[in-house]
Amino acid sequence: MLDLKPVRGMRDFYPAQMRFRQWLFDQWREVSENFNFLPYDAPLVENLDLLKRKAGEDIAEQLYTFQDKSGRDLALRAEMTPSLARMITSRFESLSMPVKWYTIAQCFRYERTTKGRKREHYQWNVDILGEDSVSAEAEIILLLVQSLKKLGLSAEQVKVKISSRNILEALMNKLDIPPEFHQPVMMTIDKKDKMSESEFDQLISDKLPRKIDIQPIFDMFKLGSPQEISRFMSGLKSSCCKQDQLDKYIEDLDQLIQYLNPVDDFIQIDFSIVRGLAYYTGIVFEVYYQQGKARAIAGGGRYSQLLEKIGGKPLSGVGFGFGDVVILDILKETSNLPQVHPQIDYYIIPFEQKNLKLAFSLLDKLTQQGKRTEIDLKFRSLRNSLKDASRDRCNFVIILFPNEVAQNQVVVKDLIKGDERKVNIRDL
Amino acid sequence: MLDLKPVRGMRDFYPAQMRFRQWLFDQWREVSENFNFLPYDAPLVENLDLLKRKAGEDIAEQLYTFQDKSGRDLALRAEMTPSLARMITSRFESLSMPVKWYTIAQCFRYERTTKGRKREHYQWNVDILGEDSVSAEAEIILLLVQSLKKLGLSAEQVKVKISSRNILEALMNKLDIPPEFHQPVMMTIDKKDKMSESEFDQLISDKLPRKIDIQPIFDMFKLGSPQEISRFMSGLKSSCCKQDQLDKYIEDLDQLIQYLNPVDDFIQIDFSIVRGLAYYTGIVFEVYYQQGKARAIAGGGRYSQLLEKIGGKPLSGVGFGFGDVVILDILKETSNLPQVHPQIDYYIIPFEQKNLKLAFSLLDKLTQQGKRTEIDLKFRSLRNSLKDASRDRCNFVIILFPNEVAQNQVVVKDLIKGDERKVNIRDL
Repeated sequence: MLDLKPVRGMRDFYPAQMRFRQWLFDQWREVSENFNFLPYDAPLVENLDLLKRKAGEDIAEQLYTFQDKSGRDLALRAEMTPSLARMITSRFESLSMPVKWYTIAQCFRYERTTKGRKREHYQWNVDILGEDSVSAEAEIILLLVQSLKKLGLSAEQVKVKISSRNILEALMNKLDIPPEFHQPVMMTIDKKDKMSESEFDQLISDKLPRKIDIQPIFDMFKLGSPQEISRFMSGLKSSCCKQDQLDKYIEDLDQLIQYLNPVDDFIQIDFSIVRGLAYYTGIVFEVYYQQGKARAIAGGGRYSQLLEKIGGKPLSGVGFGFGDVVILDILKETSNLPQVHPQIDYYIIPFEQKNLKLAFSLLDKLTQQGKRTEIDLKFRSLRNSLKDASRDRCNFVIILFPNEVAQNQVVVKDLIKGDERKVNIRDL
Repeated sequence: MLDLKPVRGMRDFYPAQMRFRQWLFDQWREVSENFNFLPYDAPLVENLDLLKRKAGEDIAEQLYTFQDKSGRDLALRAEMTPSLARMITSRFESLSMPVKWYTIAQCFRYERTTKGRKREHYQWNVDILGEDSVSAEAEIILLLVQSLKKLGLSAEQVKVKISSRNILEALMNKLDIPPEFHQPVMMTIDKKDKMSESEFDQLISDKLPRKIDIQPIFDMFKLGSPQEISRFMSGLKSSCCKQDQLDKYIEDLDQLIQYLNPVDDFIQIDFSIVRGLAYYTGIVFEVYYQQGKARAIAGGGRYSQLLEKIGGKPLSGVGFGFGDVVILDILKETSNLPQVHPQIDYYIIPFEQKNLKLAFSLLDKLTQQGKRTEIDLKFRSLRNSLKDASRDRCNFVIILFPNEVAQNQVVVKDLIKGDERKVNIRDL
């Protein structure tokens, strides 16, 4: 006997689970289309070279890699952004900017499986490329919040935490942390939820080349508005930071917060957010579920050098990824999943074998009218058929009684109102 | 510079192609749901063992195989049916029969790439399990024909060619072809479109252990009705075939043809159809595009031993697979693809940078109402913005002129009627 379980870390979707997935994807798609983003997709299998190109990450180690029969080194994609960068770069000349695209793509990563982490998941990706102003961030985050609301989540339950890598870099410059240590410090900040405060403190100190007072980094995490950040930064005694650039970064953040005014109850500035991926260069953000065990739902930010890294023209992008595993868990917990058992419009009971020809012609007719229709093929007592019909939430039952059929009629029973009437077959 | 093309044999879907794919999937999904089939999905990565279990096929050689870091032998699925059999078997006790499921699943096969054949494609699969009568075949084929009509194809353009492996087996028994040669002969029949008549004749003769007159096989291909088949079979002088079983097979075929009466212009009996997969056991069928170069669009049939092969209970199924590559080509040729450039409901022209905050609040409001909305971020002449708006097929343009905004108003231009009016912002 074969192993009947799905491959470890991967999911079977039986109809009950599949309906939730479809519903979720429909919500994502609808929001994307309302904001006039266009759909795209790329092969799930990519050249290994492309996927490994973004250095400084542990993704490369987690790839499912293999060779095809011509010896090409291939891998299953772990995220969508490299493929997006490839597609944009390869048609750069013919695309009109800004590019606004979305996809719902399955991604694979070999890692330890835990409750919220599988070895495959679906990720909704929304990106704007070719728009340098924070208008791009504003549009992307508005869209993201609208999707959260559409899924039934409130500002009490979820927050979009916004930060700026530029401002963090400026802070590290002010603290005299040499540039080559910025990335390791940020990667440590990204993992801070997984450790105690003292461990975290120690880990950052360990990354640094010499004793530096890093208290301002921790102080920074407590700041909640661009104005506070501005005051805080001016209070730091250091000259090694270009003030006009810093002002621009703070001004950008301020502008973004203003544009996000319609959804401000969902928005929080939080400089402890830096994102794990190396390619972000400016504003970054993460959606957090706040109740019970806090969980990251989605995240993204500004990336400015990704296309150049694969050989393309400089083109700045903003985007986010939003996986299906965590959100489906949360929606289940918060009872935000919809009724998934579909209503059947017509349930045909042929009653006798010889009425099947008629039953199939009715099936053809009703389904063509867009009615969800089922033929009961079990030929049992009418009582049992009707029991099944009401268990399956049918609206109408069509019974092919021999007497009525002989007169080109059927009995239509309205299970909701509870009445029944004879109907000419041609009138159905 | 990296290779910017997708991996050989696989497809990038830019928005123009992706919209067609989405539209096609939507049609498939709608037909499936109207016939009350439930959606399911399985991991794209399966255990190699499962996928190789069905012997007698060349699929195993075409699998993309690899190992995960624990040394498991895995592969990308080449078709959905083994995963379906696994899922049904593993929850056999809790499923109520018949099971009616559908999926739209990406499948991978390493093979020579030609116009209609990629190394990946999406396949719509529809299956009924646990219904032994030809009612299952009837329902599946009705659904299939309805999908063809929905895609805009007529009975002149496409035919569902129906055959019965049981009757072919009976014929081979009558011709004294030993059972172990039935499968090789059928696999040869399946490939007959790819060779000349004499090559085909030769190839079948080569498969046989001794000189047998195979003319009746060729005669069989010309029969068009169950009545003709019945007469033809009785005319063959041989006693090695159980007549009552043969009668049952012919009776089944006759019943099926009757049930398919509502779509009979799409239906054709054609005994040269046998299907390439080894697991079919009864009625088989293929959808053929008839015009220009004939092409197979979809195919399926009855399989009765698949679940047992993977260690499950005996359970008979009927299903078909319908790929996206060939049909999209045909729909393009026949101009049946829909208008894919979506209509934008509102196009907001902020006019001045300082109106962006208002523009984003309008964007949030209108998209929440389900309106497809776009902000023009280019800050150029009104004339150029309006030109883009009409090129993008917008219905309404909202212009944030400073004077009107000062009075909490905007100008709404109806691009279809050609008129414009001032509207209070709160009334949008």
